[in-house]
Amino acid sequence: MPSISQKGHNMPASPIRKLTPFADKAKKEGKKIYHLNIGQPDIETPAIMLDAIKNIDFKVWAYTPSEGTSSYRTKLASYYNKLNYDIEPSDILVTNGGSEAITIAMQACLNPGEEVIIPEPFYANYNGFACSSDIVVKPIMSYIDNGFALPSIAEFEKVITEKTKAICICNPNNPTGYLYSREELEALKEICIKYDLFLFSDEAYREFCYDGREFISPMHLAGLEQHVVIFDTVSKRYSACGARLGCLVTKNKELYQVALKFAQARLSPPGVAQIAAEAAVDTPDSYFETVSAEYTARRDTLVAGLNKIEGVFCPNPGGAFYVVAKLPIDNADRFCQWMLEDFSYENETVMMAPATGFYSTPGAGFNEVRLAYVLNEQDLAKSVAILEKALEVYPGKQ
Amino acid sequence: MPSISQKGHNMPASPIRKLTPFADKAKKEGKKIYHLNIGQPDIETPAIMLDAIKNIDFKVWAYTPSEGTSSYRTKLASYYNKLNYDIEPSDILVTNGGSEAITIAMQACLNPGEEVIIPEPFYANYNGFACSSDIVVKPIMSYIDNGFALPSIAEFEKVITEKTKAICICNPNNPTGYLYSREELEALKEICIKYDLFLFSDEAYREFCYDGREFISPMHLAGLEQHVVIFDTVSKRYSACGARLGCLVTKNKELYQVALKFAQARLSPPGVAQIAAEAAVDTPDSYFETVSAEYTARRDTLVAGLNKIEGVFCPNPGGAFYVVAKLPIDNADRFCQWMLEDFSYENETVMMAPATGFYSTPGAGFNEVRLAYVLNEQDLAKSVAILEKALEVYPGKQ
Ligand SMILES: Cc1ncc(COP(=O)(O)O)c(C=O)c1O
Ligand SMILES: Cc1ncc(COP(=O)(O)O)c(C=O)c1O
Repeated sequence: MPSISQKGHNMPASPIRKLTPFADKAKKEGKKIYHLNIGQPDIETPAIMLDAIKNIDFKVWAYTPSEGTSSYRTKLASYYNKLNYDIEPSDILVTNGGSEAITIAMQACLNPGEEVIIPEPFYANYNGFACSSDIVVKPIMSYIDNGFALPSIAEFEKVITEKTKAICICNPNNPTGYLYSREELEALKEICIKYDLFLFSDEAYREFCYDGREFISPMHLAGLEQHVVIFDTVSKRYSACGARLGCLVTKNKELYQVALKFAQARLSPPGVAQIAAEAAVDTPDSYFETVSAEYTARRDTLVAGLNKIEGVFCPNPGGAFYVVAKLPIDNADRFCQWMLEDFSYENETVMMAPATGFYSTPGAGFNEVRLAYVLNEQDLAKSVAILEKALEVYPGKQ
Repeated sequence: MPSISQKGHNMPASPIRKLTPFADKAKKEGKKIYHLNIGQPDIETPAIMLDAIKNIDFKVWAYTPSEGTSSYRTKLASYYNKLNYDIEPSDILVTNGGSEAITIAMQACLNPGEEVIIPEPFYANYNGFACSSDIVVKPIMSYIDNGFALPSIAEFEKVITEKTKAICICNPNNPTGYLYSREELEALKEICIKYDLFLFSDEAYREFCYDGREFISPMHLAGLEQHVVIFDTVSKRYSACGARLGCLVTKNKELYQVALKFAQARLSPPGVAQIAAEAAVDTPDSYFETVSAEYTARRDTLVAGLNKIEGVFCPNPGGAFYVVAKLPIDNADRFCQWMLEDFSYENETVMMAPATGFYSTPGAGFNEVRLAYVLNEQDLAKSVAILEKALEVYPGKQ
């Protein structure tokens, strides 16, 4: 039997999915599970988008151009320009989800063995994309005590080497929900220019900023045009994760041309999704206002509830729909598994993501969990109550 | 400005697209172009599939499992088992087009620097996938004189080294249309077992076999279960290229588990496409009979027409919807460009793909072109007539 590649062996399994067998077993035993473990929003996809699917009128479901249809890219440029990104349709490369934008950028910008600095905790699949591209993630610690603010320039400089080629941020952040300030982005600009680095900005959660706070993108910073690569997706913006439609945006023309070659090899992004996403650009503001109000209320319920539990600390993040909370426990992996296997309150339990999966420094996040507020307020309140009960009896309580 | 990766520089541009600027210019000048250059069929997508799209009734366009929905994989397994593949739904990994199945298999099976043997001419994007996976394509020549039959075992053995990890065939073949016989597949089995190699079988054109000839897959060969990886797609089968839905099929459980980790990193294949493709499995046989009759008639028109032109030779292939023809010319790249730039007959011309793009041996295919018979018979007859006129006046005629 021929052997599997080393890369295949090294490829990290999704940490989010490690607990799935235990959840399946719990469900079989009749337990109800509140799923706060994944970023699949329960929010309805805008009707305008679903209607566009239902109203397709082509007879041949054809390839689109590798970079996306001209009409979708034009419409999408207008969306970005409303946000003052000042870009052209030709700066947009439409991809198979935000995921593919990340892979293409990593492969187009970094040689095997070169390094991308990412503040941790970070979106776990960056590890998978880095592995499949043979590049190295250099984590740099951010801390729950200040809500996971951007590490200082000095901290970045400590890990910058000749091999450093890029910095990657996710803003607002998954898993922490942290929303970077203009000052933090200016600091990143300074580093990227000083060391001639690409700045990857994963903006999957751009629409989810709360408390009236402004979203700042590196696209807003003059002088960084050749450095910035935006990863974007319709997955969260329109609650359309199944569309598998994202894009890479860059004003760096050399990079764009190279990225396009990767896109040409795989021929085309999905067709119906582009039709739907083009329609979605006209989603009324009221949709986002409703969604934002809903998420704000959920976050407030969740964060307040968590902080009321003895020994629990949860910062109040400015964006996305995740929080990372510190619990009085010995081991988040063990605790989350125990919640599924050995605990229930009135035959219900909560599934969370151990934060360890979002750190690449071994041991970091051992007493932290990520909770996605993708359930309604009532279910969130219940989940908090269940967690409180669980912490009272968990054998590994600290 | 940060520099692009070496891989980005090395990534081959799609040879099919090199001529696009000349085609655009010709169109602007008012020339009508018969597009025989690309594999975008004009055949209608089955109504059952388009109706499934129009009838979606979900409210949240959600991620599906990374390996595809259980209902689609179950249905797809029934499709394969009708063809006697004898597989389980759990042998199927649903992907973003056949393209992604190829990338995942290359990365899961081959280490950087390891080699896959591919008979040339071959589907040009294998070069792109190999480049992005840092693996090496070892071409092995097949010849137009015998219709591009599989090279002998001895020819394979000449290029097998310690680094050889897999053989990749495309059956029926793009670009040659060649349909491999049972004997040829048995020969491949022998080599793969003797040298412990994976056998990648790209079956994008499985449905397109003519003259009553049987399609043989390595899935039909006992004893090769741990070696075989099928690349499949709905793109051509249902004329649904824009669905971006393919799959990887293997009975090798270790490989499957590793491939799944790659799939988990990118979260999910497209959702609506899976609903549509599940419905498409019930496409009535009559659809395929009509399509097959249409393609057979087209092939016959095209091949007969080409062979009537002085100095032209075109084998009559058993499958797919491509032919490779030898023309009395000095340079296929130059000729195809000249057809767009400098030639027209009654203000019409023909766009073809220079076969050089499908060979990796430098200079090979210099007097060959690939024609896709994705137009109706009348347009094909016209295209042949235009080609004949062009060859009469082409300055580089040999
Ligand atoms: C931070 C971040 N980036 C990228 C993605 C990938 O999204 P998709 O491939 O669905 O567009 C996700 C999905 O959860 C995410 O959280
Ligand atoms: C031989 C072959 N394999 C794979 C593909 C990729 O197809 P897709 O990604 O559309 O499924 C194609 C498309 O033309 C092809 O010709």
